[in-house]
Amino acid sequence: MMSGPDAVLSTRGLAGVDRDVLVQCIQACAECAQACAACADACVSEDTVVELVTCFRTDLDCADVCEATGRVLTRLAGSDASATRAVLEACAAACKACGNECESHAGMHGHCRVCAQACRRCEQACRQLLDSLG
Amino acid sequence: MMSGPDAVLSTRGLAGVDRDVLVQCIQACAECAQACAACADACVSEDTVVELVTCFRTDLDCADVCEATGRVLTRLAGSDASATRAVLEACAAACKACGNECESHAGMHGHCRVCAQACRRCEQACRQLLDSLG
Amino acid sequence: MMSGPDAVLSTRGLAGVDRDVLVQCIQACAECAQACAACADACVSEDTVVELVTCFRTDLDCADVCEATGRVLTRLAGSDASATRAVLEACAAACKACGNECESHAGMHGHCRVCAQACRRCEQACRQLLDSLG
Amino acid sequence: MMSGPDAVLSTRGLAGVDRDVLVQCIQACAECAQACAACADACVSEDTVVELVTCFRTDLDCADVCEATGRVLTRLAGSDASATRAVLEACAAACKACGNECESHAGMHGHCRVCAQACRRCEQACRQLLDSLG
Repeated sequence: MMSGPDAVLSTRGLAGVDRDVLVQCIQACAECAQACAACADACVSEDTVVELVTCFRTDLDCADVCEATGRVLTRLAGSDASATRAVLEACAAACKACGNECESHAGMHGHCRVCAQACRRCEQACRQLLDSLG
Repeated sequence: MMSGPDAVLSTRGLAGVDRDVLVQCIQACAECAQACAACADACVSEDTVVELVTCFRTDLDCADVCEATGRVLTRLAGSDASATRAVLEACAAACKACGNECESHAGMHGHCRVCAQACRRCEQACRQLLDSLG
Repeated sequence: MMSGPDAVLSTRGLAGVDRDVLVQCIQACAECAQACAACADACVSEDTVVELVTCFRTDLDCADVCEATGRVLTRLAGSDASATRAVLEACAAACKACGNECESHAGMHGHCRVCAQACRRCEQACRQLLDSLG
Repeated sequence: MMSGPDAVLSTRGLAGVDRDVLVQCIQACAECAQACAACADACVSEDTVVELVTCFRTDLDCADVCEATGRVLTRLAGSDASATRAVLEACAAACKACGNECESHAGMHGHCRVCAQACRRCEQACRQLLDSLG
């Protein structure tokens, strides 16, 4: 998709970062943030909302962390590797927590199933980028 | 793309809103926010950054407003139509301002050309959704 | 409070904007965003969460719009007055919607009472800044 | 200040978290996010913007991470301690990076001096909350 980060990042150089892994991670963060925000809203629309309060909270946590991570990665300049790594670790942790929570409701709610998958993909993309950063 | 808002929104009903127009607008907001954030960062990487300060500011304004709009639309319940309409008007205005600014540098900077296109698409998607809301 | 926008904005000039009204509005946006985020979370903690779903949604809408507005105002350069005005109108509308919704639960929930007050203050601060922009 | 997180959080219980340390951290995140956003904008207004590109990037990174952290903390339910801890570690790392960068320009730019102080306070508040979580 040439309208996403792929198109804009391609117009400038990136020092020592695997560009494909980076773009994939930015895209995964955006998709996960959207899936989590939508899942949170779907959770409070369910009759069983009382049982979904933890799910809704981990959804919103994950959405916020994924959005912030996507923005940090867009500015990736390698200037402070330890901060970038810590942000990626936080994003992977938030995705893991939300993926686990949503997976436990996946049999009952389609939005949780979709969200769990987006969380797994984003967690994996963060781990791959962490590996790529060395 | 079944990992985006399309997949999650499809699992619940939406009162009186054209679902396709809504999903298209949420997607356009996400893509525009990404393009603007990337363009802002590319602007400050240019040797001519001094001439791109206004561009960089309208980029960040547009990114922030698009992100907030995408989130508001994800929760669209029709409960307060006037607030939703005002948010969509603000998003269209921010996209127009950023599209104009980036277009004026489009001949010189690829990131501005890509960003201007994303802004035009998002402005149009907001206008279509405004029409669809009646 | 010299650690807020007051301290940093004071170190540079602002073209044609009433600085006090601007700082007050940025501060009101930050406080309203916090109150709304906390109220949303308190809503889903209530036994009567089913009756508070609309409140929770307007809370999150208002928090997102207030945060984006605060950021836009921090960059206020007067470069595109129409976009800034549209963002302030959207913020006032979101605050009004959330203030009304929270006020209707103010007798029952302390977090709604506090949130309604923050919304009223922020709506007023947006209107004052709009007047000040001429 | 009874309009901030203090007022709303006080209306409900918090399982096993030192409430004062939590409120202080949420407040520090909000103030640091504002200082960073304002510093970033002041950086691009300087004649020497070319030398401040790294500062501007760490400012925006820190602002985004602080905002996300503040939101996550507002929902603190202790449900997933490892994700919360990772987010606090990321926030402390972003504040440290931005504090170091801004401090190196503190003699020349008032906005960097103010921002460095806000970063130090927020880093410390994150560390205190991490200690308090045990």
